[in-house]
This record gives sequence, C-alpha cells and structure tokens, in this order.
Amino acid sequence: MNNFSATYTDQYQLAMAQVYFNNGHKDHIAIFDYYFRKLPFNGGYAVFSGLEDLLEVISKLRFYDDDIEFLRSQGFKDDFLKYLKEFKFSGKIYSASEGDIVFPTRPILQVEANIIEAQIIETILLNLLNFQTLIATKASRIRLVAGDAKLLDFGLRRAQATGGYFATRAAMVGGFDGTSNVLAAKNFDIPVSGTMAHSFIQSYDDELEAFRDFAKGRPEDCVLLVDTYNTLKSGIPNAIKLAKEMESRGEQLMAVRLDSGDLSYFAKESRKLLDAAGLNYVKIAASNQLDEYVIKSLLEQQAPIDIFGVGTNLVTGDPDGALDGVYKLAYSNGKPRIKISESIFKVTLPHKKQVFRMKDDNGKCIGADAIGLYHENSVEEMYHPFEPYKSMYLNKFHQEALLHKVMENGEILMNKRSLKEISEYSLTRLSELPIEYKRFNNPHIYKIGMSELLREEREKLIKSYKQKLR
Amino acid sequence: MNNFSATYTDQYQLAMAQVYFNNGHKDHIAIFDYYFRKLPFNGGYAVFSGLEDLLEVISKLRFYDDDIEFLRSQGFKDDFLKYLKEFKFSGKIYSASEGDIVFPTRPILQVEANIIEAQIIETILLNLLNFQTLIATKASRIRLVAGDAKLLDFGLRRAQATGGYFATRAAMVGGFDGTSNVLAAKNFDIPVSGTMAHSFIQSYDDELEAFRDFAKGRPEDCVLLVDTYNTLKSGIPNAIKLAKEMESRGEQLMAVRLDSGDLSYFAKESRKLLDAAGLNYVKIAASNQLDEYVIKSLLEQQAPIDIFGVGTNLVTGDPDGALDGVYKLAYSNGKPRIKISESIFKVTLPHKKQVFRMKDDNGKCIGADAIGLYHENSVEEMYHPFEPYKSMYLNKFHQEALLHKVMENGEILMNKRSLKEISEYSLTRLSELPIEYKRFNNPHIYKIGMSELLREEREKLIKSYKQKLR
Repeated sequence: MNNFSATYTDQYQLAMAQVYFNNGHKDHIAIFDYYFRKLPFNGGYAVFSGLEDLLEVISKLRFYDDDIEFLRSQGFKDDFLKYLKEFKFSGKIYSASEGDIVFPTRPILQVEANIIEAQIIETILLNLLNFQTLIATKASRIRLVAGDAKLLDFGLRRAQATGGYFATRAAMVGGFDGTSNVLAAKNFDIPVSGTMAHSFIQSYDDELEAFRDFAKGRPEDCVLLVDTYNTLKSGIPNAIKLAKEMESRGEQLMAVRLDSGDLSYFAKESRKLLDAAGLNYVKIAASNQLDEYVIKSLLEQQAPIDIFGVGTNLVTGDPDGALDGVYKLAYSNGKPRIKISESIFKVTLPHKKQVFRMKDDNGKCIGADAIGLYHENSVEEMYHPFEPYKSMYLNKFHQEALLHKVMENGEILMNKRSLKEISEYSLTRLSELPIEYKRFNNPHIYKIGMSELLREEREKLIKSYKQKLR
Repeated sequence: MNNFSATYTDQYQLAMAQVYFNNGHKDHIAIFDYYFRKLPFNGGYAVFSGLEDLLEVISKLRFYDDDIEFLRSQGFKDDFLKYLKEFKFSGKIYSASEGDIVFPTRPILQVEANIIEAQIIETILLNLLNFQTLIATKASRIRLVAGDAKLLDFGLRRAQATGGYFATRAAMVGGFDGTSNVLAAKNFDIPVSGTMAHSFIQSYDDELEAFRDFAKGRPEDCVLLVDTYNTLKSGIPNAIKLAKEMESRGEQLMAVRLDSGDLSYFAKESRKLLDAAGLNYVKIAASNQLDEYVIKSLLEQQAPIDIFGVGTNLVTGDPDGALDGVYKLAYSNGKPRIKISESIFKVTLPHKKQVFRMKDDNGKCIGADAIGLYHENSVEEMYHPFEPYKSMYLNKFHQEALLHKVMENGEILMNKRSLKEISEYSLTRLSELPIEYKRFNNPHIYKIGMSELLREEREKLIKSYKQKLR
C-alpha cells in the first residue's frame, strides 16, 4: 500500500497549482510547517509516527495516465497536465525523528520545495502523519500502564477501512509487541499473533474436540478461547484436559483467552484452576473493549493477565478520532509569510525554523522546546507565544536540535530503521520525559517558546498587516 | 484500491483454516450473519454502506506469491499453502440493499460458503462494512439537517489514513453532493470540488492580487477564501472588487468561503455586504469543525450559508469512531449453531434467516423488522429477542423481504449502481421511516423480533447446551 497516485490529494491543491503554473510562480520556493495544536487524549505528550512511510510514499508519488485523463476531463489545461505528467517531488524535508515525543504548536516537520510540489504533497502528508501520530500516542499510553504484559493489536475488523493497515504500524511504534493483521505483519515485519474465534468452537459439536483439533494443528503457539459456552464450567476445564494431553506428548499449552464477562474476576478464577492443575506456565490472554484505562484498572486489581489484545479503541484512537495537524506556509518567493487569524492562537510562525529541546546534565527533559530561526544554534531566552511578558532563560540547559534533513532532491537521506528500532528509540525518548507529563489526568504542560529573533520577525509581520487593514 | 491481497485478514482466520483443512472440514458449509449491536451516534437508524465495494473486493481476493512465501515462513504447511494459492471465494452472499436503513441485532448480510472461505473473508467484510456504514450514517444525519444546502466532504487530511478514501464513498451514499478527494472522485465518479488554501493568499503580497490570479485560472467555479487576514475588512471587500471585475468580463464569482470565527455572524455580515454590492448570486460556503449539531444550529439561527464543507467529524465518524458489527456463525456442517455468552444480549441466532420489514398501506415503515427462518415467507407474530412474554401480531402489515442473493459461486449477481442511484435509494428508504426515529435526542426505538419458528429453534439449542453444562 505504499504506491500512491498523486491524486491522493485535495482538489484545491491542483487548482492552486494550475494558477501558480499559469502565473510563473512554479519555481517559487516555499516552506511549510507541519504541527498540531492540541494534544490527543488530553495527554501530556504525543509520539511522532508515520515519517518513514511518508517519505517512501512521497519519493514514489506520480500522476499516472488515467489520472491525467481524469484531470483533463475536469478542465485542467494541456501545458499544466504535461507538467503534472513529469511530476516528481524534488524538494527538501526537515523532520523530527520518527518515534520522538512531540508537543503542540512547534514544527515537527518542514517542507522546503517549489510551491506546486509543496502543495501537492500536503494532503497525503497530513493524512499519514496525523493518523499514525494519533495511534502511536494511543499505543504509547497503553504501553505505559501495561507493565511487562504483552500487547497485541487485534483492531483490523473495526478499523476505519484500510486505515487499519497504518494503525498497526503506528501501534508498533508506540510500543505494541505484535498484531493479528497479516498483511501489515508481512509488509512491516511485525510479529503476527492470533488465537481462535468463537465460530471455531461453535463449528464443532463439542468444545474439547475443537480444542484438540486446534492444538494438533498448532501445538507450538496454541491459545484457546474459553468463553464460548461457559468460561469456568466448560472452557477452562476443557483447556486443562487438553493441556494435560499435550503434556503427555511433550507439548505445552501457551495460553487461554478470555473475551467476555468481568476480566478481572475470570482471570483470577481461571488462574486458580490452572495453577491447581499444575499449569502455572499457561498464560492468560484477555480481550474485549480494552483501552489504557481498563488495562490500568485491571492491573491495579491484580488481575493475573499476561497478554492483552487491544482492538477498536487502539486503532481508531478512541475517543479522539483525529489529530488536528496542520500545514502552514512560513516562507515563499523570498519572503517570510504569516496568517493572521480571528484567533491569536492560530497565528502562524514565519521563516524556516529549528526546534531545540532543553535537557539537564543527566539528559532528562526539563519540559521545554524552544523554536528559533533556522540559522540560530541555540536559544538564550524563549518567549511565550502569546503572552509578551512571559519568558524563560535557557542558558543553563543542554540544547538538542530536533529537526534533521531527511530528504533532499526528493531522495530519502536517512537509513531505514526497523519498527523495533523506532519503537525502542521512542521508549528511550519517553524515558527522558518526567512522569508529570505522562499522567492521564491533567498532566503537566510542556512549555513551547520562541527565540527573540523569531518573535521580532513575527511582530514585524503582524504590524505590517495591521497597518494595511487600517 | 480495490485489489486486496487475501492476507488483509486476521492471523486466526488462517490458523483456523489450516485446522479445518487438516481435519477434512474444508468442504463443510457454514452460514455467518453480519449484524451490529448498537446504533452509532445514539441515533435511531443506520445507513448500510460498503456492499458493492466489498463484493468487488471479495470477487478478486487472492493470495499472491509473496503472501504464500510469507505464510510459509510463519509455519503454514505445504498442502495447505497449495490450497491457498488456488483460493477464490466461491460461496453465496445474501444481503440488504446498499443504502437501506438498518437496525441493531438483525442480520444485514449472510455468507453461505465452505467454512475456510467464509472465515478468510470475515476480517475484510467487517472492516469495509463497519466503517462505510458508520460514515454513511453520519453523512445521512448531516443531510437530514442541511435542507437544500450543498454538502461537500473535505475530510481527507484528517482521515484515518487511507480510510479516507472509503469515507468519501460512504459520505456520498449518505447524501453528500461532492468531495475534495481527487482519487475517490476519479474512481467512484463523484463530483469534485475545491476552493483555495490560506497558503495561496499568503504566498502573494496582496490578497486582491491573489484573488485576481485565481479567478483568471478558474473563472467558471471560483470560490474565494476570505478569512486569511480579516474577513469583513479585507476578504469580503476584495472579493466584491474582484466580482465586479469578473462581471465586466461577463463572468460570475461563484462563492466566498468562511473558515474561522463565528460562522453565523460572519455569514450574515458577509451576505449584507455582498447584497449591498448587488452580488446576490454569490454564494456563501462555510467550513471549520462542522457536524450535524453545528449545522443544525447555524441554520436555526438563519445563517445564510449555501454550501457546507465538512471534514474531520464526517470522515472519522466522530464521536463514535467504529460501528460494532460482528460476524457470527449460525450454521455449519449440517447443523444450526449458537453462541451462549455470559450476557443474554450476546446470544446469537441459529440457522439461515430472512428479515421482513413491516409497512402500512402507504408504504411507510411501522417501525419493526421481523427475523424468520429463510424458508418462511412472512412472520405472523414476532417475539422480543430476550423478553419471552413480549410479542406483536404482524398480520395487518405488508411484509418486505430484505435479504437478496447478491453473490453466487463467488460472482456478483446484481447490476452495479452508480453512487448517485444508491444515494437516491437511501433517501427514499429514509423517507419511509417516521420522523420519530430520526430525532437526535432519544429517538424512538425500532423493534426487532423473531418468528415463532426461529425462537423455538434457539430455545432448543440453548436448552441442549445448558444440559451439557450441568
């Protein structure tokens, strides 16, 4: 699913591109910022995800013959269509590392390209980064509370159609261990997992018979679903019988799965029955409408669950559904640009920029990222974006530049990392963040500020537009 | 995006299939029901969508060479892999018509196929139908309140990755008029629409200059975004200047678009300014976090808005994120099957079934669908699914059978309809439903019941399983 037609975009990108083309703006260099305004899940951080996918997609983005014919039928003109036929993204991209923790209003990624190319990739960029960042953040929250338990993505059936494919990838970035999604497992090299459905048990006249056939087929990773008829009276006793039969063949039953009822109660009772039968090694897996809150509470009640299968709430990013990421023009045709909105909160930041993370001597985040102009090497004092008298001195901190050039001339510069590497990087970055930012309720607010130079540039532009409006 | 690898499935489907294959069950005929348990958005109905897509996908579903190699690496055996290499769905599907209104717990679709094929298609069936039904329902609710206004889908950038492609299709089924999504417009033959981005205005030194260039490029469908700097002091006055210039060339400005601030206030003030300039024909389009509630309230306040662009809340189905559709075994290997759950609400219905809609002499729904066995031609008395003493006589109603055979031997039986036809069919079906079921708050509950024969069959199975558990 990484071969996209460049028509995976909004119509206005092409309408604007046609105008730029007609008016000789096609080689004007533009810089766009990607950032979001509000953290998902009322949380204290987000996990940036989707970058490697996006770069691969952009490097291959083309208009195919049938695309060109469709656009011709929509009134686009020959010379412009000829241009689109040759289209290949040839610009630069600067970005935070995939898996890093990110915060609202600071640029996460910047595109520097001619304005037509920069517009045409806008929609797919927002589409892939907004969604994967949302899901990686959700996955990371679940990872935070799950301790040593194994986390499996079971969401494909309730996912938002093919969005589920990318949700699986993002779940791994956020710290999940495996998935039931075979296609994603294959393409992204993810450990694939599965158990059995109720229908399997139902298709037999007898539950134990069903268990026996299943174990014969997959003795090495056999997980039995025990709640089809009655968990404690039928499912677990039959699982115990089978486990004993497997022992006599030198095999071990891997786990039983609970999928209904009170998971804490059934896990405890199942554990007792299994242990009493000498089956301490048989693990307990649980699924059914899980999320970070339910898992936290199950583990607080000491439910002996070793494996959690998380579905719908993970892959749809419930209850948020979308990250509000935007793509805003900061520079074009040799000049810094700004959007003055009805709301001060939505005024954009002009110029090409760099973002610096403040760290103490132990490498821990102190809870602040500062945005400077790109040529600044560090930020001495950072200013609150909307409250002119609030500022903070940064001299005593180590400053880490967060945006790296990841694409040039449309070619990917970075080495491809495995999802495992990205996920481990993400966990490391998260470990640098104090726990106050990881609280689910009313977490501490991470500070974002501007350098003095950036603030002055923005003030100048706001003033000049205000004068025009007088 | 309609060519799917059959690995777009959950791993357990293949694990179960391998066991069926090993144990000689591969030709056992199974019947599965697709239905959901809870209406989305606390509404009174849902709009069934995704069927034509799904049938096309199923008819083409194959395991490709790299799929087979991947599955080999996962421990699947040669003889079974050989079987998968030849895989082609060869079963029957019975379904409600796409666009029909549907209700919880009654079968919307039934698959009758050998148990391996029926399992392998489960995940993609749930994935495509759950999501499109969710979004078509959301779109239908927006259509209900929008009166004559034009409704455009602008959601791709915040959609759940490629789910946005299918969201656009479903939005049309639910009554939208067009989309900004070029790829979906092309593949599904949908009217495509677009305006301009703030970045377009920002990339010029002067707003009026930007408007002029844009109108030159697209005089026939020019929509100007007027809130980049200041809607009433800059955007609208510049739009009026341009409209007058266009008039002098014999052209007409189509619309202005508002994208921030209070949309009711700005629409009214903009309308006054446009009308005072003799530009009554210039329409007003509005966007920015719209949904059915906001649009209803804007129109109640008589905001003069002609076109609504709806994005995130439409394509993600906010606030629900997912429809809880399930796929449950009703029959296999010559016997009816049932799942007895911890909760009576989750007990399934055995056997192949038909669903009948009750209508009065005027063709209006009376608010009840009855589920019978497939060979029943009508249902005389229907019984509440969980309350044994509640029943309703149906003799005086016209009874419409709702499930039709749409696939046989893996071939699609129905003629392909255009999205426009499906959408018109949906509006007709919705018009047969009394308004009490369309209320947003606490809508009237549509009744679903079972025929006496179906009830007896279910009772028999429950009793026999209960005896086993004693």
